[in-house]
Amino acid sequence: MKLATLKNGTRDGQLVLVTGDLSHYVDASAIAPTLQAALDDWAIVAPRLIELADEIAAGSSIAKREALDATQLHSPLPRAFQWADGSAYVNHVELVRKARSAEMPETFWTDPLMYQGGSDRFLGPCDDIAMADTAWGIDMEGEIAVITDDVPMGASLDQARDAIRLIMLVNDVSLRGLIPGELAKGFGFFQSKPSSAFSPVAVTPDELGDAWDGGKVHLPLNVDLNGKPFGRANAGVDMTFDFAQLVAHAARTRPLGAGSVVGSGTVSNKLDGGPGKPVAEGGAGYSCIAEIRMIETIETGAAKTPFLQFGDRVKIEMLGKDGTSIFGAIDQTVTQYKG
Amino acid sequence: MKLATLKNGTRDGQLVLVTGDLSHYVDASAIAPTLQAALDDWAIVAPRLIELADEIAAGSSIAKREALDATQLHSPLPRAFQWADGSAYVNHVELVRKARSAEMPETFWTDPLMYQGGSDRFLGPCDDIAMADTAWGIDMEGEIAVITDDVPMGASLDQARDAIRLIMLVNDVSLRGLIPGELAKGFGFFQSKPSSAFSPVAVTPDELGDAWDGGKVHLPLNVDLNGKPFGRANAGVDMTFDFAQLVAHAARTRPLGAGSVVGSGTVSNKLDGGPGKPVAEGGAGYSCIAEIRMIETIETGAAKTPFLQFGDRVKIEMLGKDGTSIFGAIDQTVTQYKG
Repeated sequence: MKLATLKNGTRDGQLVLVTGDLSHYVDASAIAPTLQAALDDWAIVAPRLIELADEIAAGSSIAKREALDATQLHSPLPRAFQWADGSAYVNHVELVRKARSAEMPETFWTDPLMYQGGSDRFLGPCDDIAMADTAWGIDMEGEIAVITDDVPMGASLDQARDAIRLIMLVNDVSLRGLIPGELAKGFGFFQSKPSSAFSPVAVTPDELGDAWDGGKVHLPLNVDLNGKPFGRANAGVDMTFDFAQLVAHAARTRPLGAGSVVGSGTVSNKLDGGPGKPVAEGGAGYSCIAEIRMIETIETGAAKTPFLQFGDRVKIEMLGKDGTSIFGAIDQTVTQYKG
Repeated sequence: MKLATLKNGTRDGQLVLVTGDLSHYVDASAIAPTLQAALDDWAIVAPRLIELADEIAAGSSIAKREALDATQLHSPLPRAFQWADGSAYVNHVELVRKARSAEMPETFWTDPLMYQGGSDRFLGPCDDIAMADTAWGIDMEGEIAVITDDVPMGASLDQARDAIRLIMLVNDVSLRGLIPGELAKGFGFFQSKPSSAFSPVAVTPDELGDAWDGGKVHLPLNVDLNGKPFGRANAGVDMTFDFAQLVAHAARTRPLGAGSVVGSGTVSNKLDGGPGKPVAEGGAGYSCIAEIRMIETIETGAAKTPFLQFGDRVKIEMLGKDGTSIFGAIDQTVTQYKG
């Protein structure tokens, strides 16, 4: 089942069911007005959504099909009660540290890094990334995220895994220029993590077939910059902590409410135990600009790839083994914010 | 106007209007079903709520008055789309640093500290603080918080100030034993900040009269531990950044959605330019246990006041100049969580 949220002038939008090939949608708001409402009552709502999805797939539904236009979509949750983003590809973290000649503590391989992100106003998948100043070092971060049901405090890995309801992609927009100063203050990210965007649709795990093993998505994440392949890192490779571990980490000292979004952190693959190579050189590339800049810094002493400029376009998508898009594409242009 | 949220078996509860003396409430759900719904459409909803409040105050309302029982209340927002907590009483931060012999950067006096908190499942004002382990160093933090309307990205101080809709109290429960390890990882708080609780009612700024100057609440915050006065720090004193500055800080790189909760951080007063004294010794006391432990450490080399134990009771309240409770009392007991 694929779910999306249509912009309809309200803050939470209208819940729609999307066909497997992403070509059409059907209004699902009679079953639940919004995706949050569906998640609030998933045990009752999901079977009814599945029934409608099955009817649509079988061609037996009398519901009116409309052509899907991703620019008319909100993120699946236009706002959420929680956005907890892990950093599960420890390779990425190790590289960041190496670029500034800092040792990475051994515990980073056993204890997940996670930050609490802002979730009150997500960007739609095709909304502009409007920023006041490119000196802030605007960057994309291609990630996977799950949406959970209620998770009890102290949840086991099995409880955490079983609470995963939906999967989607993320562009965790980051302001690299603001990160060092903000992290030095000791309280984590705030201004350096502006609004994130999510893929047009969120899918139930079964839509991924055997590419979903209960904790990881074993497919490449396609990140394109200005129409050129920038990243093809496999989300199932080098993910030190799977989603069950990330959700359990988030729930250690408090319960998670239904509709909590938990992210993987920037997808990142090693190459022969070391940093990866650009896609153009036959490597898996990168899911954020910071990573190629770190490698440039390690190799040549200075970064040469610039962060995002006004007019730059970022596309993040994942294709199934049959070559079709699973979640639709996050496709955003960076623009200058004018207050 | 005083607003509260009655527990009614739903996640967001039922919006009620509370009488000025906190003795009674009237159902307001016909105007807006929940407080978030009211905030989503404040310009239209607020005048109708004010009209009802005026009728109740005048005794002309036909709405049924019920006796208010704070144990039946959720936090005003049982869950929120944002909980951004500042640390505006820099005195508190300076003390923490001093206790571990760390210099505080001068910029802390000009650039607010703020962390993104979890907002998906707040505790009710009289709900137990259920934790698995007292070794986590369970502590209260008495704070003030505001709830905002929509705030544009890059908001000016005036825009930020004008977006403040409601004021309430917070118990920002903290796990001191988990903080050093978590902050050392560099991504800020996560497991060390479990669910917070808010006061029974949230009030519009006019309810504070001249105790509200547009940015600060000039009244003592009463924090009691096991029935004894623990803190009487004045929230209007030593607040280095007022709420306009905190809201503007939060909105620097992204807009804030209506219903964003922005906190002051632990209320803390200096005494003659140095650390305060316990209430029993004639001082303003402390709004968290960590602070008295820091002072004990500075003065004697070791902390002697223990963090919260199972069975301990924390009460946080603020009285108006006439001696009556403005927000009702946060009144929580620490209990052992059993999964």
